[in-house]
Amino acid sequence: MIDRARRVFELYGFASLDTRAVEPLETLLAKGETSKEVYLLRRLQADEADSSDSRLGLHFDLTIPFARYVAENAGKLQFPFRRYQIQKCWRGERPQEGRYREFLQADIDIVDRDTLSPHFDAEFPLIIADVLGGLPLPRIRVQVNNRKVLKGFYQGLGILEPDATIRTVDKIDKIGPDGVTAELAGYGVTESQAKLALALAEISSSDTSFVDDVRKLGVTDPLLDEGLEELAFVIETAAEHAPGLCFAELKIARGLDYYTGTVYETKLVGFERAGSICGGGRYDNLAVSGNDRFPGVGISLGISRTLGLLFGRDALAASRSVPTCVLVALPAEQDRRAANRIANSLRSRGIATEVSPSAAKFGKQIRYAERRGIPFVWFPQTSEVKDIRSGDQVQADPAEWAPPPEDLHPTISGSFD
Amino acid sequence: MIDRARRVFELYGFASLDTRAVEPLETLLAKGETSKEVYLLRRLQADEADSSDSRLGLHFDLTIPFARYVAENAGKLQFPFRRYQIQKCWRGERPQEGRYREFLQADIDIVDRDTLSPHFDAEFPLIIADVLGGLPLPRIRVQVNNRKVLKGFYQGLGILEPDATIRTVDKIDKIGPDGVTAELAGYGVTESQAKLALALAEISSSDTSFVDDVRKLGVTDPLLDEGLEELAFVIETAAEHAPGLCFAELKIARGLDYYTGTVYETKLVGFERAGSICGGGRYDNLAVSGNDRFPGVGISLGISRTLGLLFGRDALAASRSVPTCVLVALPAEQDRRAANRIANSLRSRGIATEVSPSAAKFGKQIRYAERRGIPFVWFPQTSEVKDIRSGDQVQADPAEWAPPPEDLHPTISGSFD
Repeated sequence: MIDRARRVFELYGFASLDTRAVEPLETLLAKGETSKEVYLLRRLQADEADSSDSRLGLHFDLTIPFARYVAENAGKLQFPFRRYQIQKCWRGERPQEGRYREFLQADIDIVDRDTLSPHFDAEFPLIIADVLGGLPLPRIRVQVNNRKVLKGFYQGLGILEPDATIRTVDKIDKIGPDGVTAELAGYGVTESQAKLALALAEISSSDTSFVDDVRKLGVTDPLLDEGLEELAFVIETAAEHAPGLCFAELKIARGLDYYTGTVYETKLVGFERAGSICGGGRYDNLAVSGNDRFPGVGISLGISRTLGLLFGRDALAASRSVPTCVLVALPAEQDRRAANRIANSLRSRGIATEVSPSAAKFGKQIRYAERRGIPFVWFPQTSEVKDIRSGDQVQADPAEWAPPPEDLHPTISGSFD
Repeated sequence: MIDRARRVFELYGFASLDTRAVEPLETLLAKGETSKEVYLLRRLQADEADSSDSRLGLHFDLTIPFARYVAENAGKLQFPFRRYQIQKCWRGERPQEGRYREFLQADIDIVDRDTLSPHFDAEFPLIIADVLGGLPLPRIRVQVNNRKVLKGFYQGLGILEPDATIRTVDKIDKIGPDGVTAELAGYGVTESQAKLALALAEISSSDTSFVDDVRKLGVTDPLLDEGLEELAFVIETAAEHAPGLCFAELKIARGLDYYTGTVYETKLVGFERAGSICGGGRYDNLAVSGNDRFPGVGISLGISRTLGLLFGRDALAASRSVPTCVLVALPAEQDRRAANRIANSLRSRGIATEVSPSAAKFGKQIRYAERRGIPFVWFPQTSEVKDIRSGDQVQADPAEWAPPPEDLHPTISGSFD
């Protein structure tokens, strides 16, 4: 999954970036509501008086470190700047299925100076589909929305606290429509306003018909127009390149506060209740350096979440537990050098090879291979190679023999639905 | 460097392993003298009374987490077990050239149950030479010793504190022979004993002639014999497979306390003063679970150290700053979909491609490519591709055209000596 992500990200021109695990606490807490989840560091033998390290924490996502990196290195970067970053993140939250205190994320982002063209927002669902489509995973469904649609609609409705309303409506799957209406009433949203806000949240389509559905609710606002245009472009582009992939889902908002426009969530079909495996969006105000602003858009693929979910449900299986394709058997310990030469010959042609750890009886050496799923055993004294699954044994030259391509590397297979 | 390490490690049958960044403090401090360098974690909002997280620290190497993993999972593993692990480590020490508070290591280790055959010790220098020999790096020199030689020799000499003596003699490059003699005298080592200990430290050879040199010093001890035999085997194997790679250097000891036999250090030729870029050794007592012991041997390649050293001295250069090989130019914004189709066609054949971020004048679009080192620009309206370095421009079909192989991916070149 990591290799596939890297390969596809690079095919789309994203450069690799790696940032330190640690950021100043004020950077981590500048945006968002995750302060409770941050791990702080201190040196075991730190002087009580030495507080220089005392405000460092482990990053809890890769977007904030990236924004810090861009602001710090703006003078050296070429904009628009596209990078990918595959690293661990840490959050001190309660672990559960698909949620861990340490987890691996694969992020891609594009930032530009001053303004970032909206066409970039349409690229990300296609790239993620390209990554995941090449893997033995369930089909995905990318849900897209635009916060300008939500904010513009609520403003147009006359709601005074549109940002709070976004957060409240986002809880609809947890607390239900009545819960939403009650919470909205708490800060002055009327029942008729709440009704329309809930009607908006119900709109969903795989084409641009959602625009008419929103218009029919009769609310107007310039920000709403802008959001609808941007969202329609993302959905239209996706419908052309990958039909059935993307849906406009007007109830989606994302938890993090720094999103300002497009937002993405992604579900594995058949595993919807496990939540989003890949989310992101546009953040126009996250990276700032003096008077310079670096708006960005990006998406983050939860590698630990996806694999944790699927391995946890026994939906994935590996063909073997080691990379080794061939075990060179050892007739006697003094044959080790000759066996090493055979192994090196195979390795030089890309065939992963081990020499038997000891000159035990051949039956024991074959069991060494069997237990690990190594498909071939090489017998140096007769120059024969045996497929231990079928029992087929053939004469072979270590400078020429190759396994069938499907046996060269371990493979992963998935069983879903 | 990471990819090359992975590829070679897998060719030798090492399976990939990743352990959490965090270990209980008692695991981290069970061996070794690095307690001052450990970073402890605590949650920002942790309850004062909640001490459950209070004794967790970031790992400072990959050997200790691996030993913990082996002891914990011994029932599920097949022995001998060989794994590689490429992860960040953290130490709270003062940063300097090649030493960082966060650094990336690539480790390979083999562990077995109860006993681990000495022939494994000879594999590691060859694997590391295979990894580094395939990269644009300076030549390496692997220095090997065996702690049994040192301990046996000191015991045979009648020294009462052989472990302390190992640590003192290890400082010879820092404090000189007189400093060593003075420090040894502090715990009762006589001048004539110190003279022989220093004579041992001077022995060095690229073949097994070191054995005779040690014998000539007239000290005998069963542990010394065992150590000499093991060390001779490592040097002999290396001399056969990679002449000039390995040297027996009897002054080498390694800083960490858990080594019990073979120890390795590796210098980049021309960068010797910067220290070892790759070290390790045998540890017979590190992984223990109840009455079971899991002796191991391994080596750790300092990726951050090596690259920090070479990039810091401008000894490495990349052919371009992005993976992109082709930029598809954009005549007008409405041509974006057609340009995307050309890009997808190239990507589907493994050619990293970007579409121009905007329909600016072609001169500006070409400069976008130039600034990033992207070698080719594709003009959709005439179906031509231009090598912007030479100016050559040819007709091309996106379903068939390919760049010269050397331009497909960015390359790194080194200039040393």
